[in-house]
Parts: sequence; structure tokens; C-alpha cells
Amino acid sequence: MIGQARHRVVVIGAGFGGKYAARALRNAPADVTVINGTNHHVFEPLIYQVATGVLSPGEVATPVRELFRGQPNTEVLLGWVTDVDTDGRTVTATAPGGLPYQVPYDTLIVAAGTAQSYFGNDRFAAHTISLKSIDDAVELRSRILTAFEMAELATDPAEQARWMTFAIVGAGPTGVELAGQIAEIAHRTLPGEYRRIDPATARIVLIDAAPRILPTFSPGSSAAAARRLRELGVEIHVNTLVTDVSAAGVQVTAAGAGTFIEAMTRVWSAGVAAAPLAARIAAATGAPTDRSGRILVEPDLTVPGHPEIFVVGDLMSLDGLPGVAQVSIQGGGHAGRTIRRRLAGKPTGRPFHYFDKGNIATVSRFSAVADLRGVRLSGLAGWLLWLGVHWAYLPRGRNRASSLIRWAVTFLGRSRPERAVTARQAGIPTRTVLEPAEATPART
Amino acid sequence: MIGQARHRVVVIGAGFGGKYAARALRNAPADVTVINGTNHHVFEPLIYQVATGVLSPGEVATPVRELFRGQPNTEVLLGWVTDVDTDGRTVTATAPGGLPYQVPYDTLIVAAGTAQSYFGNDRFAAHTISLKSIDDAVELRSRILTAFEMAELATDPAEQARWMTFAIVGAGPTGVELAGQIAEIAHRTLPGEYRRIDPATARIVLIDAAPRILPTFSPGSSAAAARRLRELGVEIHVNTLVTDVSAAGVQVTAAGAGTFIEAMTRVWSAGVAAAPLAARIAAATGAPTDRSGRILVEPDLTVPGHPEIFVVGDLMSLDGLPGVAQVSIQGGGHAGRTIRRRLAGKPTGRPFHYFDKGNIATVSRFSAVADLRGVRLSGLAGWLLWLGVHWAYLPRGRNRASSLIRWAVTFLGRSRPERAVTARQAGIPTRTVLEPAEATPART
Repeated sequence: MIGQARHRVVVIGAGFGGKYAARALRNAPADVTVINGTNHHVFEPLIYQVATGVLSPGEVATPVRELFRGQPNTEVLLGWVTDVDTDGRTVTATAPGGLPYQVPYDTLIVAAGTAQSYFGNDRFAAHTISLKSIDDAVELRSRILTAFEMAELATDPAEQARWMTFAIVGAGPTGVELAGQIAEIAHRTLPGEYRRIDPATARIVLIDAAPRILPTFSPGSSAAAARRLRELGVEIHVNTLVTDVSAAGVQVTAAGAGTFIEAMTRVWSAGVAAAPLAARIAAATGAPTDRSGRILVEPDLTVPGHPEIFVVGDLMSLDGLPGVAQVSIQGGGHAGRTIRRRLAGKPTGRPFHYFDKGNIATVSRFSAVADLRGVRLSGLAGWLLWLGVHWAYLPRGRNRASSLIRWAVTFLGRSRPERAVTARQAGIPTRTVLEPAEATPART
Repeated sequence: MIGQARHRVVVIGAGFGGKYAARALRNAPADVTVINGTNHHVFEPLIYQVATGVLSPGEVATPVRELFRGQPNTEVLLGWVTDVDTDGRTVTATAPGGLPYQVPYDTLIVAAGTAQSYFGNDRFAAHTISLKSIDDAVELRSRILTAFEMAELATDPAEQARWMTFAIVGAGPTGVELAGQIAEIAHRTLPGEYRRIDPATARIVLIDAAPRILPTFSPGSSAAAARRLRELGVEIHVNTLVTDVSAAGVQVTAAGAGTFIEAMTRVWSAGVAAAPLAARIAAATGAPTDRSGRILVEPDLTVPGHPEIFVVGDLMSLDGLPGVAQVSIQGGGHAGRTIRRRLAGKPTGRPFHYFDKGNIATVSRFSAVADLRGVRLSGLAGWLLWLGVHWAYLPRGRNRASSLIRWAVTFLGRSRPERAVTARQAGIPTRTVLEPAEATPART
């Protein structure tokens, strides 16, 4: 730690909540330690573009250290937080390689985010891929692109069809954006590159139990997005329950009738749940949790009876606020400012007020839907808004220029800049090592 | 296949040799099948920049299908070639998932490239990482960046020093370029981001058995590169043999004296050997091989007694030509043109003439060494030449612009655009799945 005598704030997680909490403590008379499970902050709203070959991982992942390079009171530790001792005020984390370490705190900000939820059907996890991390995005990109390769190699038409079917469970923003991008890969990027299959015949199936896609958006935006997706050839199955998932496809039930959708690529974007750490903190503090496992916080975002513990972002349950980036960003800032005020001896306890800026989701190039405080935009107007908002929010100045080029390449042209599937990802054996008597000099 | 009646050419490998061979067959009256173990062609001379966070994988990896999109007589198959039946004229490959398939040929071009060579000490492979593929580059990037993270977490100074020592075995272009880039990461990118360690104290050790680094370059270029590396703080150990490698470091011997260099990151760039396929083809055809396992070809690049089999690139042994990109590019083109002339009924058998354009290696930003047909350039002049040549040769028009931005960010600024180490790479457990009674809607 830096200077043990000062007030110590530990921030668990460097997602939106943790980032904005630690930022708000920039000039506070406190030593701040940010612990994160990877070396980067992920700009989650664009992660689907990594999964579909538009952006590179570095364009949506900012090194956590770089975020706090100019903030001398803040240190960053790589580690996976496994436990919090709320009596001893100590966080236990595990470093890569299994090395455990402990960090004491005076104030704790828990911003550990979410895990994927399978609604109690955890065996679905083995047969689907979700989209929460860079690992997920790179893996999904590999599966989408390899599916077309496997279809080209397949000799049985039924097998080709299975490889060319993409089932997406969950029609929230992630599911909708992914369906739109896979449709554009099939219809715009890949045609002309295959000799045995027609990539444009790919089947993209978007499934949700709700009566409409984008259920958190206005009915008008939802309908506009559905229209555009259907134009792109996406099959939309709403009011449809997923009852089973296997290595061959997805079993669904709609209006009492069951159907099996054969699909070699199956994406799960149906729900999130609180990270496991929430349960530990709830058990230790006696804090109540909601049905998603999130901690019910006081209006100032602290744990009941524990004013030294703040919970922000997706782990926090307050007034039914949704698990969206803006709630995390604003909640993190609120927690940081409250601590700063406390340390300055100013009155605290101010309740958190969320300012809802609205919702936006891209359906395809030149088409997005947006609900902004009563104003509804769709089509090109929505897409231009998406472009402006995301470009402005992209965290790294230097990656903005390259992202803009990637978008021009993808949306004005037909290419995708990031299509490399490695041998390891494709399950291809890497080179056998030889034992020659003498080897040639390394290749230039 | 497309139209079985036409002459069938199979190209094994889509590296430089395979790419230029298939390109030369664009307008030939033949059906061409390119079989490659991944979906991309790698621009190998820049792969070290992926390993050091400058470029993204997509910027050095072009989809093989995209290369041949506008070449209707050419199809691309994903697969790992395991055998060639030279009597039955059939190639056997394995697709991802283990599915074997066979492709018949009338003419075969073998451009399968190299495997890493450990000079008979294959156990070194377990304790080093090489730099031949995108998998290698992304893994090495993860190890370099994670080493600094581990040093920050270490409490024992000796352990910190081990994490901050990078041993590179082999001082050819790859080793030199890597040493220079790791030095720049330590001295320019990371300072200011750590609170417990000083990244600039990292120790970078470059080891080679030869009496000078860049042994294939002129002595003047070699000396200029060594001077610049020493300015960057790189330790150069020439005339030094590696006698053992373990999980803790590298055992070396110089002038009869042994030393153990403790290093948690160990890179092997010391040598390459022919891919295993060369031995199979040699056994089947009776073709002689050199001590590196490469096939001794006729002057027209065919296998002795098998005018229907061409061997190009790193698998080919002819007149002591080095295993460099230009030999592969020109050899591939020669094979393709020879086949085209044969099919047109024109005289063939022309010997392959290699035009040596020279050697170039970057040492650091603004500093490179180049030997060009008698002209020697170093420092900024060499670097500007490097910039021009590599920008011109970068295979994808659309990725040139983004690469230029990446270079500006890295060389004019101090950042590295691609620094994301994923949880899987760092060995951090991914999120535990929960089983809540009900989950929240997906995050926006």
C-alpha cells in the first residue's frame, strides 16, 4: 500500500462502476486500490463488435493501469477477489498462478459486476457461448467464422444447414446487435469467398420468451428493430421458451408446440445474475438480496448497517434500476463523491439519483433504434446518434481514430478487419517439433 | 472440386509461398485448391508487433478466402495436411474437429513452411515460447504484460527481478526486433503505471551462439543494431550457448564459463526446421533432404523425378537460399508461372533465379538497419525505409490505414494499442455460474 496512515479505499472491479468510483477519488485524501480480474476495463456496449470482427480487443479494452496512470493516489492490482472479511475489513484476492493476497480497507466499493445466468439450467452453459468478456467475444468470433468453414467442408446438405444456423437466445440489445451483425457477415462480408455454399443462405434465429424483442425499449423502437432485422433475413421467435439446449441445437416451445432448431452455433444472451461475491457479502453483513442475488442497498448505495461498504453497478439493487452501463457509471461516481465528502467532513448521506439518458441499440449498418427521454429515433437518424454517442464514449483517445477507420471499412465497405481464427481456437494441432541435426537460421 | 475435368492444382499452405503460387495461377486453365491450417495468411515480418501490443492480429492476418475472392478458379479449404499419396496423387487433410478429407491433384505445390527447431533439445519447448503464429504472438504478449503485473504483486525483490527479466534466445531479426520492443515497453509505455516496481529496471537479455547479432546482415549493420540495443538497455550475449532451459531461467555457457540467467519470460527464436510434411514427401518420392529436413529440389523447384510436385518457401533447399520471405514469394510465383506455361503448352523447365532485395530489421522506433544490394542504412534512414517497405507490403489495403495509426500511437506517443490480457490467458478463473430463481434482463 502507499502510506498506510491515510484512509484506504479498495475498489473491487474495474468495469464502469469501479472505473467511475475510483476516478471520483482522484483528489481525495485517500489511498485507493483497484483490484480487477483482468488487466483491462472493457467497454461492454461494443463487445459484440469484437465478436463479429469489426473491432480488435484493444479497441474496446483499456488497460486499467492506463486509466489511473495520472492518479498517483491509486494503485492497481491484478487479482480475482474471492472473499471479503467485513469484520476484519480485508479483501482476499487470488493472483494469476494461484497466489492469494490480502488488502485491508477502511472503505470498500464493490463493483464486481455480473455472471451469466441460465435461469437454473446450468447445463445450458456447456452448449452455448455468452458475451461478457474479451475471451467470450474472441471465442464467439472464432465459432461464427469456423461454422462457415465447416459448412464449406461438409458434404451432407443437412450438416451444412446445421453449421449455417445461428441460434441466439435472448433478444435484448446484445442479442439484437449480434443477430444484425451475423446477418451482415452472411450477406455482405462472405459472399464470393465460398465455392460450395452460399453464405447468404445462413439462418439466424433470435429467440426470446418476451412478447417482443428489446423488451426494455419502447414498443415503437422494438417494432422498428424487428422490421429491420426481418429485412436482413433474421427469424424472430418471440413468446418462445427455450426448454433445452444440446450440442445439436435448441429445443423451443411456443404456443404449446415444441420445435427443435438444429444449430451448431448457439449464443446465450438471455440474462445476467449477480457475481458470486454478492452472496458472500450478503451472508457476512446480513444484507438482503433480490431474486437475482443483487444486494438491496440504502439510498446512498451503502450496505444496510455498513456505511463503509458501497455496492454499485450490476451488483446493486435499488428502486428497480436496470443493469445498464449508465446506472453503473453514475452509481460509481456517486459512491466516490460520497467518500470524498465524508473525508472532507462535509454532510453526506445524499441519496443516489439516476438520470436516465435513454436506450440505444444498433440493428445493422445505418440502422439503430433509440429511446431518449420521450424522443424516439430509428433508422439512419438512430444510427448516426449511435455513432456519435459511442465514438464520444470510447475511452481511449488514440483508439478512437482506429475505431472510426474500422467502422468505415465495415459499414461503407464489406470487409471485416478482424477475422483471424487461430489454430488453437479452431482445434487444429500446432506444429510438431522436429529434431534435426542442424537447423536453419531464423526466418527474416 | 470445381469441374473435375480441368487440371487440378493443390497448394498446401497459404504463407508467402502458397499465396504467390496460387496468385500466379489466377488466369490458368486449372482448378486450384488452397489448403491451409488456419483461415488466414500471416504477414510474418510484423508478427513481433502483435506480440508487443502495437498491431492487432487482424492487421497482420488476411483471410485466405479474401485473398482469392476475385479468383473464381480457386477454392480454399480449412485443414491440416497430414499426408500426401504421391502415387495416387491425393492430399489428406484434417478439418477442425478431426474430420479427415482427401483432395486429388494433378500438380501439387508444397508450401507448408517451418516448425520451430530446438536443435535436438525438445524439452526446451516446454519452457520457452516461440513466435511463429498468431497464437504464439498473443500468448507472448500476455506473458510479457503479465510478468510486470506479477512483479508488482511480488513482495520478494528476487522474485520481482525474475519476473522482470526477459531472456530471448536467438538474435536473428525476430529476436532483435522483440528485444527492442520489450525495451520500449519497459522504458516508454509502462513507466508511471506502477506503484511498487519501476518497469524501466526490467532486464532484457539477448543470447546467440554466433559471434554477432543479426548474423545474416553485414557486420556494419550488425554493429549498428547492437549499439542501438545497448542504448536501450538490452544486454547482448553473443558467442553464448544455451545449454539448458527450465521454468526458472536459462543456463548459458560463454568462453567455457556457465551462468544461470533467472527469467520468468523465455523466448525461443533460435531456429526453424522443415515442417513434418517434408519428411513424408521425401520418404515417398526418395527425394534427398538437407540437414534441416528441407527437400533438395531441381532448379525449377520440382522434386527430383516428380515434375508434378513443386516445393517452395522454407521447405525447399536450393543453392543455400535463406529461409526468408522474399525467397518464398519469388519461389511461389515461379512455381505458379511454370504450371501456367505447361498448361499453355509453352516451354518450361526454366530455373528459378532469386533476386535478393536485401535485409531489413527494426531495432526501435526511429531506428532500423538495412542492407540493400551494397547499400547500408541505419538509424532513422533505415527506419523510414522500413516504414515505407512494410506499409507497401502490408497485404490489406484497408488495414494499412489502421496500422499507420497504430504506428503513430506507438512511435510518436508512448501507448500500445493492444494490451488486453484476457482472464483465460492470465489463468484467472472465469465467472462462476449462478442459479438464481430469476435473473435480470441482459445488460444494455
